[in-house]
Amino acid sequence: MTQEKTIFQKIIDDEIPSTKICDNENFAAFLDAFPTSPGHTLVVTKEPYKDLLETPDEISGKLLTFVKKLSIKIKEATGADGIKLIMNNGAAAGQEVFHIHCHIIPRFKGDKWPAKYEYKEGEASEIANKIIAEFEN
Amino acid sequence: MTQEKTIFQKIIDDEIPSTKICDNENFAAFLDAFPTSPGHTLVVTKEPYKDLLETPDEISGKLLTFVKKLSIKIKEATGADGIKLIMNNGAAAGQEVFHIHCHIIPRFKGDKWPAKYEYKEGEASEIANKIIAEFEN
Repeated sequence: MTQEKTIFQKIIDDEIPSTKICDNENFAAFLDAFPTSPGHTLVVTKEPYKDLLETPDEISGKLLTFVKKLSIKIKEATGADGIKLIMNNGAAAGQEVFHIHCHIIPRFKGDKWPAKYEYKEGEASEIANKIIAEFEN
Repeated sequence: MTQEKTIFQKIIDDEIPSTKICDNENFAAFLDAFPTSPGHTLVVTKEPYKDLLETPDEISGKLLTFVKKLSIKIKEATGADGIKLIMNNGAAAGQEVFHIHCHIIPRFKGDKWPAKYEYKEGEASEIANKIIAEFEN
């Protein structure tokens, strides 16, 4: 029996569109399609581990450093004042897609939390491009 | 000029009491004094880095694997259905103590979020002891 691909696996495999930021051998990053703030990014593993608790040490050992480096770029690109990181493990914890992912959420002085954000036409790719450009600095 | 110790540094240095879970060369874990659920644990670095963005790769590379292993034990000990992980980086992101820390929050089917939890007399150390006992299994 083949397990059905999660939406994140389909994004990794380019079967559905996303606003990609970067990827490497182990991880991929793209803008969250249901953002809480501009620049809200998801980092996923290339391999479809269900959650952090089921992710091997070799990968968990690299994930947070990848998230850190990307967070620094996202903070620069968006002008955010802080970065909130969330990982939900299990449905009871709010996990909706059962493929390990870390939310990188830019936060701004005086913003509201929890929040929803809606991109204007073209804004998502503009922000993604700003983040990508940070990697060239 | 000596920077004043954060409350977490004082906990690490045993200058103020806490309900400790475990520690090693790089990290310490103890129950959050203002929990959102029973077993809500904080993992801090022994060195007082301000937040993840200022933490060296060598430490960020070990932190998430430590958090993962502890999360598995906390889930077992508390009977939680899920584990929510949060790292707030910067005041705008909700960080209150400027010493890097990761919240490990047990979540239960049907619980409310956000939430506050109050331990009954003796309950915090009882839960801590259950988590500690998991390391012996």
